[in-house]
Amino acid sequence: MDEREVLERIEARRQRASRRLLDERITLAHGAGGRSSQALVEALLLPALRNSLLEPLADAAILELEDGTQLAFSTDSYVVKPLSFPGGDIARLAVHGTINDLAVSGAQPLALSAGLILEEGLAVAELARYVASLGETAREAGVPIATGDTKVVERGKADGLYISTSGIGLVAASSKLGAQEIRSGDRVLLSGTIGDHGMAVLVARGELELEGAIESDTAPLHGLVAALLAACGAAVHCMRDPTRGGVATALNELARASRTGIVIDESAIPVAATVAGACEILGIDPLYVANEGKLIAIVGPEVAEVALATMRAHPLGREATLIGEIREERPGMVILDTTFGGSRVVDTLAGDPLPRIC
Amino acid sequence: MDEREVLERIEARRQRASRRLLDERITLAHGAGGRSSQALVEALLLPALRNSLLEPLADAAILELEDGTQLAFSTDSYVVKPLSFPGGDIARLAVHGTINDLAVSGAQPLALSAGLILEEGLAVAELARYVASLGETAREAGVPIATGDTKVVERGKADGLYISTSGIGLVAASSKLGAQEIRSGDRVLLSGTIGDHGMAVLVARGELELEGAIESDTAPLHGLVAALLAACGAAVHCMRDPTRGGVATALNELARASRTGIVIDESAIPVAATVAGACEILGIDPLYVANEGKLIAIVGPEVAEVALATMRAHPLGREATLIGEIREERPGMVILDTTFGGSRVVDTLAGDPLPRIC
Repeated sequence: MDEREVLERIEARRQRASRRLLDERITLAHGAGGRSSQALVEALLLPALRNSLLEPLADAAILELEDGTQLAFSTDSYVVKPLSFPGGDIARLAVHGTINDLAVSGAQPLALSAGLILEEGLAVAELARYVASLGETAREAGVPIATGDTKVVERGKADGLYISTSGIGLVAASSKLGAQEIRSGDRVLLSGTIGDHGMAVLVARGELELEGAIESDTAPLHGLVAALLAACGAAVHCMRDPTRGGVATALNELARASRTGIVIDESAIPVAATVAGACEILGIDPLYVANEGKLIAIVGPEVAEVALATMRAHPLGREATLIGEIREERPGMVILDTTFGGSRVVDTLAGDPLPRIC
Repeated sequence: MDEREVLERIEARRQRASRRLLDERITLAHGAGGRSSQALVEALLLPALRNSLLEPLADAAILELEDGTQLAFSTDSYVVKPLSFPGGDIARLAVHGTINDLAVSGAQPLALSAGLILEEGLAVAELARYVASLGETAREAGVPIATGDTKVVERGKADGLYISTSGIGLVAASSKLGAQEIRSGDRVLLSGTIGDHGMAVLVARGELELEGAIESDTAPLHGLVAALLAACGAAVHCMRDPTRGGVATALNELARASRTGIVIDESAIPVAATVAGACEILGIDPLYVANEGKLIAIVGPEVAEVALATMRAHPLGREATLIGEIREERPGMVILDTTFGGSRVVDTLAGDPLPRIC
């Protein structure tokens, strides 16, 4: 077999693996955003719920109203443990996460909903802190929480507080974004360091003696995205916020969906020294660690410099870098050019090294 | 003190009570939809999240886009125990509940989101049944599940499965609905029997030896609402689906919000014999028991007959009845004319006789 045949077989196996759900019981890995989550979605959720809005499995569904108005609609549930961590808390994540799903879909967020599931016995003072954070985060981002719901379950049937947010956004009429727009030669930009959120949560759990040294990057990306779209317009082809499963998993999803190969340069990917150190201690690759305020943008080569300058001019993109490019070869795969001069296939996250990270 | 003064004092006390949150810890009553839930919303959530979209605390928020399009946006989390019960399951509730919140706001539902929180160890086959039900219920109702999310928490941190749904709907340009439209002389219509859902769930828990005798009324109300609005237009002043807290709590909210008195006739309110029996055994008033497929419509007296005939012509309104009317007297209060010829004040639900009913 030549290399092409080998890669095709690997890809065929991955496709098969991700479409079958072999587990008899739900495990934490099904919620981790990697291979098991994809299998759950593709083998169980999609066949049961199938419809043209859901099918693209994008960060947000795009609904077109009769008058041509395009709405983005997205949802996420948050079960992060612990509820607070350096740089944020469950409420900030819930607001930012849904805003970011709308933003990377090219939508200007209009309103959020928040559904709270409370555990009996939760201190009202503690709840009050998270609700205050919810309000403050929404105000900072300029996106109101328009509607909500509260349920309570018995002690031992939740873990303090879970928050489900959903959001509506307005898509610019000219916007045409998505994996199907990715072309060979496009450049892959990343707005800053990776792995900060996941490692901050892990440190907050006391699993490492690094208290306070790492802060979550949780942040609302709609301002950065608006600046990028204003500067580069339709030459922005696709955006993602690499949350669960990290940059590696987000890029794998894009490579598969666009049937292109993505080559990234390890040395170009910024990782804070503390995060790199924590990852090394735990044996975790920062490429798989969740981010909550980072943007991957895939843009035409003609705007790469402008895009990078625009991102760097924004407070949330100061450390933006060009991390790779799109190739025709090896469709569906992500190849990492390592700092040692070699290259290796970077696959989707398997298993769940970091449960309940968001 | 004359009667008026007494009533004013009662009302003032109720207002005070509902604006203060005296509990140090969250109890199941905070999720029951009655007095404690109101206190939680008014004393804690509303002050922290306050904005003009949330403030009306209606079943759905109404957003007006720049082109005048009016969107309804609503959310609910579902934690019902057990997950299945005669007449429905958690997935049917989640789809119907959000559709109904949109429908009673005068909106035609466009799309739903679904966020699943799964407990580690949940059998995949069991999850598959609820996901199938989610898809089937959405298809039956003609409202797609456009976007979703799945999280997993460790054993003992959830109860099998929780579902949060939110929904977007399109409000007819002519629509003007809400408690502020309620006028003295308006008629109060109810689409059918009360208490079926709450009692079906209780029976399913094995708390009564009546297995199978009571079925949940869970149903999507958007068809019934569309028929009513087509027949009566702007003479439909306000609608509610009396879920948690039952008809009594829904009417109390409307009486307070509209500053009118609502007089209802006990003998006109349909209750299935099995439900009445189960309520009697448990010492629960069916007026406080949750419904998941019932509509309260407050309409101008001139259309009351047409509205009733329209509801009765619809499969979900066959047993619709006129149950009361709006008065200027006793603003903020609900008065029940009893079958014994007397009358009594019907207050908002206090405590939580039926935890985790939805």
